[in-house]
Amino acid sequence: MRIGVDVGGTKIVAGLVDDSGTVIGKKRIPVVQKKGYSGIKKDIIALIKVILREGGVSEKTIEKIGIACAGQIEKGTQKILFSPNLRWRNAPLKRDIERYFNVRTFLENDVNAAVYGEWKFGLKETKKDVIGIFIGTGVGGGIITNGTLLHGFSNVGGEVGHIILNPYGYRCHCGNYGCFEAYCGGSYIVERVKNGIREGYRGRIREIAGGDLNSLHAGHIEEAYMLGDDLCGRIWREVIEYLGAGIASLVNLLNPEVVLLGGGVVYGTKYLVDEARKVMEERAMEASLKGLLVEKGRLGDDAAIIGAAFIE
Amino acid sequence: MRIGVDVGGTKIVAGLVDDSGTVIGKKRIPVVQKKGYSGIKKDIIALIKVILREGGVSEKTIEKIGIACAGQIEKGTQKILFSPNLRWRNAPLKRDIERYFNVRTFLENDVNAAVYGEWKFGLKETKKDVIGIFIGTGVGGGIITNGTLLHGFSNVGGEVGHIILNPYGYRCHCGNYGCFEAYCGGSYIVERVKNGIREGYRGRIREIAGGDLNSLHAGHIEEAYMLGDDLCGRIWREVIEYLGAGIASLVNLLNPEVVLLGGGVVYGTKYLVDEARKVMEERAMEASLKGLLVEKGRLGDDAAIIGAAFIE
Repeated sequence: MRIGVDVGGTKIVAGLVDDSGTVIGKKRIPVVQKKGYSGIKKDIIALIKVILREGGVSEKTIEKIGIACAGQIEKGTQKILFSPNLRWRNAPLKRDIERYFNVRTFLENDVNAAVYGEWKFGLKETKKDVIGIFIGTGVGGGIITNGTLLHGFSNVGGEVGHIILNPYGYRCHCGNYGCFEAYCGGSYIVERVKNGIREGYRGRIREIAGGDLNSLHAGHIEEAYMLGDDLCGRIWREVIEYLGAGIASLVNLLNPEVVLLGGGVVYGTKYLVDEARKVMEERAMEASLKGLLVEKGRLGDDAAIIGAAFIE
Repeated sequence: MRIGVDVGGTKIVAGLVDDSGTVIGKKRIPVVQKKGYSGIKKDIIALIKVILREGGVSEKTIEKIGIACAGQIEKGTQKILFSPNLRWRNAPLKRDIERYFNVRTFLENDVNAAVYGEWKFGLKETKKDVIGIFIGTGVGGGIITNGTLLHGFSNVGGEVGHIILNPYGYRCHCGNYGCFEAYCGGSYIVERVKNGIREGYRGRIREIAGGDLNSLHAGHIEEAYMLGDDLCGRIWREVIEYLGAGIASLVNLLNPEVVLLGGGVVYGTKYLVDEARKVMEERAMEASLKGLLVEKGRLGDDAAIIGAAFIE
C-alpha cells in the first residue's frame, strides 16, 4: 500500500493507493497559505494520518509516500527550491515527512507525477515515448523518452508550457512573450474573453456562463464559439490553432508515440482535442506522424496522486 | 581503428578514426546523383578502400564502419527510408556495406552523429544533458538526455529545426510555416537578402559579397549588419531574435546543461552566438538558465565522421 499526496496552490489531496494503482480512499483539505510552510506541513501530516485511520491501514504497512508539488525541486535532496503557488522557498517537505512517518518518501513535480501516473497505469507502460500536455489554468507537462521521465540538468525539464510559439506574442506569467501557456492556458483564455467584454463586447457569452463571469471557463467559451459568438470565435480559433501548432512543434522535436492530453481545459471541452489534432496533422512532419496517437488522460484528477505514489 | 563516412547531398567524406576520436586520414569525393543508389554505393565502397590503402590499414583490423546520412532511418534495420538530399528511398546502405567488407556497420542520421561526436570527444561525455543545434543551409540537431541520444518512436526525434517559432511565419521546406529552420537556416536567410535586392534594394551587401551574389553567405550578411546596412540589419536582427527565442524554447523544454552550436552559419559569423545568447537569457526561465553553458562545437567538419565511427 502507498500514499500519494497532491499539494496544489488551493487544496491538498491525499490518497491511499494500492499496488494496482487504484485509489482506494482519498481526502482533500484547503491550503491555508497564511499558515506558511510549517503550518501546511502539519496539515499534510494530519491528512495522511486521517487517510490511514479511515483506510484501517497501519503506517508500518505503507511502502512509500509520494508527494506531487508544483515548482522546482532540487535534484538529490528533493527540496522544494521554489513553489510559486505556495510561495515556499527551500522547503524540506520530503525530509520532514520522511522523518515524521519513518516511511520512504519521494517528492516530484506535480505535472511530471501526473504524466508518470498516466504512463504507468493509463497506458500500462506499453509506450516508451510519450509527451504529456496538461492544460489547466496554465500549461504543464512531462516527457517520457525511451521509457524514462526526462528531468534535465536542474530537474526542471519537461516544461512544455514554456516552449515559444511566437516571440512577439502574448505576455506569459514566466516573464517571456508568446509561450504555449500564454496562448492555451485556461486563465489566459478566460482573461482575453473578459477583456473583450470589458471593452464593450455584448455577445451571448455572459448568458452561456450563467450570467456570472466569475465562473467563466473554457467550456463556456467553446460553447459560445460553436454557437457563432464573434468574440469567443476569434479567441477560441486562436487557441485551436496554437494548441495544434504547439503539439506539432513537440511532435517534430521529440517524435513521441503518444501525445497525452489532460487537465481542466481538455476534460471540460468537447471538440478541442479533435480540432487541435487536425491542425497538428497539417503542421507536423510526415515521418513524425506515422503511428502517432493523440489521447486524453484516463486517470482524471487522480493522475498526480497515483504517479507520485509510484515514481522513483 | 574505425571508419566514419559522412554522406551528404553534394559530397561524401570518409575518414580513418583512431580510438581517441582523432581523424588520422580522410578523403572526399563528389556525389554524382545520376548514378543512383547502386552507383553511389560503389563509390562509397571504393572510397573506403582508398582510405584503408592510404592509411596502410587492413580491413581485418577495422572494428566498425559508421555512416552518417541525412534523412529518416528505420529503427532496427537502419535502412534509409527517405533521404531528401540524395532522393533515395528504402536504401539498404548499412546492409550492403556490412556485407561487402564483413565489418560491423552502423548508420545514423548525420546531425545526430555530429552531436554524438561533439558530445563524446568535444565534451568528453562529462555532460549528460546536451542539445546540439547545427545551423548550415538548414537547421538540424540532436538531443542527449541523461547521457543517451534521443531517437524517438520512429527514429526521427531531435529535429530541432522544426520546432515552430511562429505559426504564421515564413514558409519552411518541410511544408509547415514558421519553423526554426525557416527563420535561421542559412539558405533561407540568404534568400531573404536576395529577395530584397531583387526588389530594388541598393546597399553595400553586393560589394561585401565581393560583387557576386551567388557566393553570398551568412558571414557577409552579419558584416553588412555591423556596418549599418538597412536590409541586412533588418534581416539579421530577426535571425538573432529568433535564434535566441528558439534556444530559449528548447532550454525551457529540455533543461540541458549545454547548448552546443555548430554548422556553417555558426562557424562563419563572429557575433551571432553571443548576441543570440543574450536574447535567450532574457527569454528562458531562471531555473533553466542556472549553470547552462552555450558553446560552439570543437570538432568542426569532422564531427559527423567521428560520431558515426563511435555511435552504437
